[in-house]
Amino acid sequence: MTTISIETLKDEYLRIRKCTEKLVEPLEIEDFIVQADTHVSPSKWHLAHTTWFFETFLLKNFFTNYHVFHKGFNYLFNSYYETVGKFHPQKARGLITRPTVSETFSYRKYVDEHILSLVEKTNQTDLDQIKELIEIGLNHEQQHQELLLTDLKYNFSFNPTHPVYMANDISDNSSSPQDLSFIEIEGGLVEIGSDGEGFSFDNERPRHKKWLDPYRLANRPVTNGEYIQFIEDGGYLKAEFWLSDGWNAVNKYKWQAPQYWEKHDGKWYAFTLSGLLPIDEYAPVTHISFYEADAYARWAGRRLPTEEEWEHGLQHTPVEGNFADQGYFHPISKIKRDTTQPFLKGFGDVWEWTQSSYSPYPRNKPLKGALGEYNAKFMANQMVLKGGSCATPESHIRLTYRNFFYPQMRWQFSGVRLAEDVL
Amino acid sequence: MTTISIETLKDEYLRIRKCTEKLVEPLEIEDFIVQADTHVSPSKWHLAHTTWFFETFLLKNFFTNYHVFHKGFNYLFNSYYETVGKFHPQKARGLITRPTVSETFSYRKYVDEHILSLVEKTNQTDLDQIKELIEIGLNHEQQHQELLLTDLKYNFSFNPTHPVYMANDISDNSSSPQDLSFIEIEGGLVEIGSDGEGFSFDNERPRHKKWLDPYRLANRPVTNGEYIQFIEDGGYLKAEFWLSDGWNAVNKYKWQAPQYWEKHDGKWYAFTLSGLLPIDEYAPVTHISFYEADAYARWAGRRLPTEEEWEHGLQHTPVEGNFADQGYFHPISKIKRDTTQPFLKGFGDVWEWTQSSYSPYPRNKPLKGALGEYNAKFMANQMVLKGGSCATPESHIRLTYRNFFYPQMRWQFSGVRLAEDVL
Amino acid sequence: MTTISIETLKDEYLRIRKCTEKLVEPLEIEDFIVQADTHVSPSKWHLAHTTWFFETFLLKNFFTNYHVFHKGFNYLFNSYYETVGKFHPQKARGLITRPTVSETFSYRKYVDEHILSLVEKTNQTDLDQIKELIEIGLNHEQQHQELLLTDLKYNFSFNPTHPVYMANDISDNSSSPQDLSFIEIEGGLVEIGSDGEGFSFDNERPRHKKWLDPYRLANRPVTNGEYIQFIEDGGYLKAEFWLSDGWNAVNKYKWQAPQYWEKHDGKWYAFTLSGLLPIDEYAPVTHISFYEADAYARWAGRRLPTEEEWEHGLQHTPVEGNFADQGYFHPISKIKRDTTQPFLKGFGDVWEWTQSSYSPYPRNKPLKGALGEYNAKFMANQMVLKGGSCATPESHIRLTYRNFFYPQMRWQFSGVRLAEDVL
Amino acid sequence: MTTISIETLKDEYLRIRKCTEKLVEPLEIEDFIVQADTHVSPSKWHLAHTTWFFETFLLKNFFTNYHVFHKGFNYLFNSYYETVGKFHPQKARGLITRPTVSETFSYRKYVDEHILSLVEKTNQTDLDQIKELIEIGLNHEQQHQELLLTDLKYNFSFNPTHPVYMANDISDNSSSPQDLSFIEIEGGLVEIGSDGEGFSFDNERPRHKKWLDPYRLANRPVTNGEYIQFIEDGGYLKAEFWLSDGWNAVNKYKWQAPQYWEKHDGKWYAFTLSGLLPIDEYAPVTHISFYEADAYARWAGRRLPTEEEWEHGLQHTPVEGNFADQGYFHPISKIKRDTTQPFLKGFGDVWEWTQSSYSPYPRNKPLKGALGEYNAKFMANQMVLKGGSCATPESHIRLTYRNFFYPQMRWQFSGVRLAEDVL
Repeated sequence: MTTISIETLKDEYLRIRKCTEKLVEPLEIEDFIVQADTHVSPSKWHLAHTTWFFETFLLKNFFTNYHVFHKGFNYLFNSYYETVGKFHPQKARGLITRPTVSETFSYRKYVDEHILSLVEKTNQTDLDQIKELIEIGLNHEQQHQELLLTDLKYNFSFNPTHPVYMANDISDNSSSPQDLSFIEIEGGLVEIGSDGEGFSFDNERPRHKKWLDPYRLANRPVTNGEYIQFIEDGGYLKAEFWLSDGWNAVNKYKWQAPQYWEKHDGKWYAFTLSGLLPIDEYAPVTHISFYEADAYARWAGRRLPTEEEWEHGLQHTPVEGNFADQGYFHPISKIKRDTTQPFLKGFGDVWEWTQSSYSPYPRNKPLKGALGEYNAKFMANQMVLKGGSCATPESHIRLTYRNFFYPQMRWQFSGVRLAEDVL
Repeated sequence: MTTISIETLKDEYLRIRKCTEKLVEPLEIEDFIVQADTHVSPSKWHLAHTTWFFETFLLKNFFTNYHVFHKGFNYLFNSYYETVGKFHPQKARGLITRPTVSETFSYRKYVDEHILSLVEKTNQTDLDQIKELIEIGLNHEQQHQELLLTDLKYNFSFNPTHPVYMANDISDNSSSPQDLSFIEIEGGLVEIGSDGEGFSFDNERPRHKKWLDPYRLANRPVTNGEYIQFIEDGGYLKAEFWLSDGWNAVNKYKWQAPQYWEKHDGKWYAFTLSGLLPIDEYAPVTHISFYEADAYARWAGRRLPTEEEWEHGLQHTPVEGNFADQGYFHPISKIKRDTTQPFLKGFGDVWEWTQSSYSPYPRNKPLKGALGEYNAKFMANQMVLKGGSCATPESHIRLTYRNFFYPQMRWQFSGVRLAEDVL
Repeated sequence: MTTISIETLKDEYLRIRKCTEKLVEPLEIEDFIVQADTHVSPSKWHLAHTTWFFETFLLKNFFTNYHVFHKGFNYLFNSYYETVGKFHPQKARGLITRPTVSETFSYRKYVDEHILSLVEKTNQTDLDQIKELIEIGLNHEQQHQELLLTDLKYNFSFNPTHPVYMANDISDNSSSPQDLSFIEIEGGLVEIGSDGEGFSFDNERPRHKKWLDPYRLANRPVTNGEYIQFIEDGGYLKAEFWLSDGWNAVNKYKWQAPQYWEKHDGKWYAFTLSGLLPIDEYAPVTHISFYEADAYARWAGRRLPTEEEWEHGLQHTPVEGNFADQGYFHPISKIKRDTTQPFLKGFGDVWEWTQSSYSPYPRNKPLKGALGEYNAKFMANQMVLKGGSCATPESHIRLTYRNFFYPQMRWQFSGVRLAEDVL
Repeated sequence: MTTISIETLKDEYLRIRKCTEKLVEPLEIEDFIVQADTHVSPSKWHLAHTTWFFETFLLKNFFTNYHVFHKGFNYLFNSYYETVGKFHPQKARGLITRPTVSETFSYRKYVDEHILSLVEKTNQTDLDQIKELIEIGLNHEQQHQELLLTDLKYNFSFNPTHPVYMANDISDNSSSPQDLSFIEIEGGLVEIGSDGEGFSFDNERPRHKKWLDPYRLANRPVTNGEYIQFIEDGGYLKAEFWLSDGWNAVNKYKWQAPQYWEKHDGKWYAFTLSGLLPIDEYAPVTHISFYEADAYARWAGRRLPTEEEWEHGLQHTPVEGNFADQGYFHPISKIKRDTTQPFLKGFGDVWEWTQSSYSPYPRNKPLKGALGEYNAKFMANQMVLKGGSCATPESHIRLTYRNFFYPQMRWQFSGVRLAEDVL
């Protein structure tokens, strides 16, 4: 990105910042405030935190005589950067009514103006570093665009009146899925991770060698119809399919189906960002935990792929699919791409759980300073997911992207693609 | 109330309903939504629940062909009436963003219009019952006016920027308190409870006999200055002053001072509805639990009064003082009444904890039907408080009024008046 | 007691101390150790704590040059006397395997020898005080005899093999109960509490006046058969019978019957100290909480008596019945006393919940010093029970005795006697 | 093992079973019963569960007309085998006093006799399978020998009188450690896992290829003295060294030093199976969590090795060291082996945390049937440890052995060996 022009940089900055604001247009003021559980945040917080990110890592360091917008915001809107200072407890974000939404938009405007001014006025020495930090900030903003949507869905789901974020007739997009097939991949000593071309997070680097035995990958993710067979076969009642921690989760949380599913008169429905809708049996199953993905795979006599098998297997698949840009905000069964590709629905629709725990690549070096906390300190107890979802901005995703969540988490648009050994 | 005219009834209805709406005028939309703990409710919920009360107990029963405003509201805004139907979990009230605040006001308007119409059109047969239910509904509304204020204060207190509800210069009202003295009361076989004149809740009835040994009651509540002596004497560190459950609470919640108190540079401040203010050492101490009131009394070599001692002792004291109507929303030290009265600050400023657990009066009969749940089912584990506070509407309080809270609760404007035996 | 001879005192001391040891004779070493929940204690702890009581309040204060048996025991076996020093957390008593049971018996022997020696050698000045403290210590020992039995039962109940403490054929004692009837009592200005004759705890004093309206008391406690009707009528499923806190307890703990009850093939059984036995429908129901007692009474159209109604009503009833001395350790239906008495089963079998919260009598003064912690600091959130149970030593109980437990507690032999107003 | 003779098999069976019984010889009956937390078990339970294992997987399947010792034991002593049937909750193992210890020894004797009889009488067809199952059972028994010791230590640690299991003068074994150095290892495409020679668990198989970049491994684990430097440098106070989940653990559990450490008069002591002893600064640090191991490594500018780096690096190191057989039951600084080896203390003393999460090897197949639950279902959220400890039986450990625990666990003898990249 250091080679792009200042004008392009400014355009890109404004484009992505406006994307965030466009996402909250359908909301009422009240919707911006609530936080239904620790792992989700209010929409207002996302608006403010992404702004704090630019203020903290750019304006405070590079803008001469910068005056912060409000001295209380560093405490309120720092998410988890211990080296930046103390921060407001994550679980209490839903208790903060001031600043108001309107004041939060003023905060965004103030920081945007200063960022644009900074980019124009900065000297050549700092420019490369500033460009790099803005690029990180914009990728960070895009991550929060996705979280804003998934958190909003989670928060709305606690309202028994089923609020509608955006009325999409998703059923229009239903079409019978391609038959499930498995594509064989040779493996061997392959290379994994970012080669440094284009933007990548520090956790995708360095590109490194990995031995892979031959394996097969499913041509598409598991569908709702297939997953219903698992449910109807007593999948949630039989310990034999589950990891020990997964079985404990089934019993603790009383899981009987994916998150947001409800059964009415013998028929499955799901709460979506377009309200309560009938399940489309041809669309990829979503809102399942790693444990459910893993149990489904065992039930199906298969296994989850490793993150390297996924990345190597889909290396030639175009990064196309149902992303946030399409505006469905839900996985759909209709396929809008070249069906001669072996992998259908390789990207978009649902994040795909892998069997790989999130850990550092060999010789990985986190960013220096506070931004080293961005990714590296979460490398325990979480699992890698690949491919992006219907809530991911299309320009944000790439083959080497490593998303990561705790194995019991279900509020993301997470699904599953099967794999198997070649014996 | 059954003797008042329909016009007076309508005026009183509108006056009290408007009071509620006036209380929320200073709020931003965002402020209406949050709930910082299970025992407090969002302002919006109070607006809606009080309206649901009229809809449920009046319109549904007496208004011919009444159409409910929204069929989801009976679930959302029923507080705890099991016999009315299932209700939304109390702890999740802060997750509900729809209906919006604006829709909630429409709900109020819709119900108000129907109530006024009902009163006008009703036949003579139902009129007495309707008047009685409206009276209960208005007293209920006033209780929620007080809760709206105390809950708002609690919710605001979690915001590190100390939001201001209404900027009062409370320090203007500081004046040295009258010396503490104890007034001797003879006791004997006295009568306690409502004699049926004027409105009373079912828990204040029937008037009944009670034997009281001679005792003394303090002329005024304990002040902040006196309470600070208790703190400075290590009151919160010495088990000997505390009930066992109280000592457990001290350690569990790490209490070191009343709720909302903060020490800065060796000086005590408290968060108030007017923001963070220095402690007025002459004003009554407030936001203390029953356990703290009791521990203070032991430390002072005194005890708490029983509810009957309080009621009998103050039977001739006028119901005057610092109520919500004054608009301070905080206890003040200045006294605005006839100081020739033996009891100063008998009513208003702070609810006064008694040593009496909340239990039924002899031969007490709760109201029939769902309204029997209003008071009776809470007669376990709670303590009686007397006298009203700076957040109580003046027309709501009376000598026989029995308020009740769990002994660990501190978010009400609760304080303490000392008593002692005559030996 | 200060008038009894030294010989009698020594005999009484040895008799009661030996009672405790006799109670544990049927136990295996392993049984002495466990603690299934915070509110119960291991048998070994009871053996040691009662001994610590004599060591602390007598030997350390009066025995010249007394050497403690083990310097770690003051920490380990102090129960809750804050003014005596820090103590081992109550919830961790079941983790202590050393001292062994054998060493604990040595501790008892050591202290017993020193107490006997103290009584003999003491000068006249201290003798009255020593006699009084020994009397308190022996009453304390008897309380722990009852707790030892109820705690053992609770601990055993977690073993799916249903261990037997003592094989009694309790069914031999089944006989049809007298018909339920209600005895009218006039009330008026009565006197309640201990008049100072004989031993009493500080919480039973002073004798004081109390006004009672006329009332009726049931001639006997509620039976299992009657309680089963409540269960079968959906008593545990209908909120209308329950206090709010009680209904929460029903749902939190999933109560469906008294503690220890199990249904097999449509028939009720209960775990007893004699193993799993069929319910005797004629015996008093036991192991119910205050909430269940109260809900049963509402279902039956009656109410619980106040503690004063109970005490006044049974003032002429002989203190006879099924106590620990009989060795059943379970309520029985057969009645062994003069059936011309109006109240059958007035004492023994089951502690009877009253509607009175445990609070100080007017002008009550707790004992001075650490022994003031014995009773007074528990005067919050607990309810008074009267009459003694099948696990109470007969010489320990009396008319004015006030037992107290939290309203959700069920591990004591607690039952219910109905009352009603005379209208 | 299928090639060994029946006599050798019987000898080995008796030898290992007797080892377990020898370990509990120093215990009092009381010590066998308690369970201080869910993750530890009473000694008695270990004695019974290992016996249940032989009864369940051998006698019930192969011994004609076998009668179980007690029909309640399948429920009580099944640990977690869902496919075998329902089992007693893990957290409640410390509440079971019956069977007594003596009865548990009878159970062992009964099963031992039947196993020996089974081995003698079995036909040739079943013999290989029986030999294999006995081998698994004996390895299982050895795992529980280690757990018995670590659980006992944990349970004892809650007794403020510091019970002594076996009085060793561990300080005799103190000697200055070899200087810390790093041994460079070339890596490349190496092979990892068991080749099928000798016994291995299913989780060690199959042997498979793994690419390793060149790296360096420390010649010995980190010592107490080195770890104290980390503590004194504020290691437990600085978020920057910690994984996010680790930092949460530090704050939640208030960690300030390894488990069992206490500071008295400025000097560190640790509770050991020989009582409270001064820290030997030259011995390997132990009882640290994965998070502490990882934080120490970051503080030291190094990292943890992967499990494959550990296994490949130590492939030529003899399996010698301080194991349970030595009887110290604590890491010691004295080295008893050939010091010309590059790796000192490669095995024994402490389990060494790796940065590898416990997951299946490529193409791994768990055992069929219930024994497939032995290892495979735990492959989530746990980390791999290598090398065995001072509580591991020497004949139980090997290069390819994969131990696994949750990253917050500290009750095992767990330590840390540093690694670093070759750049």
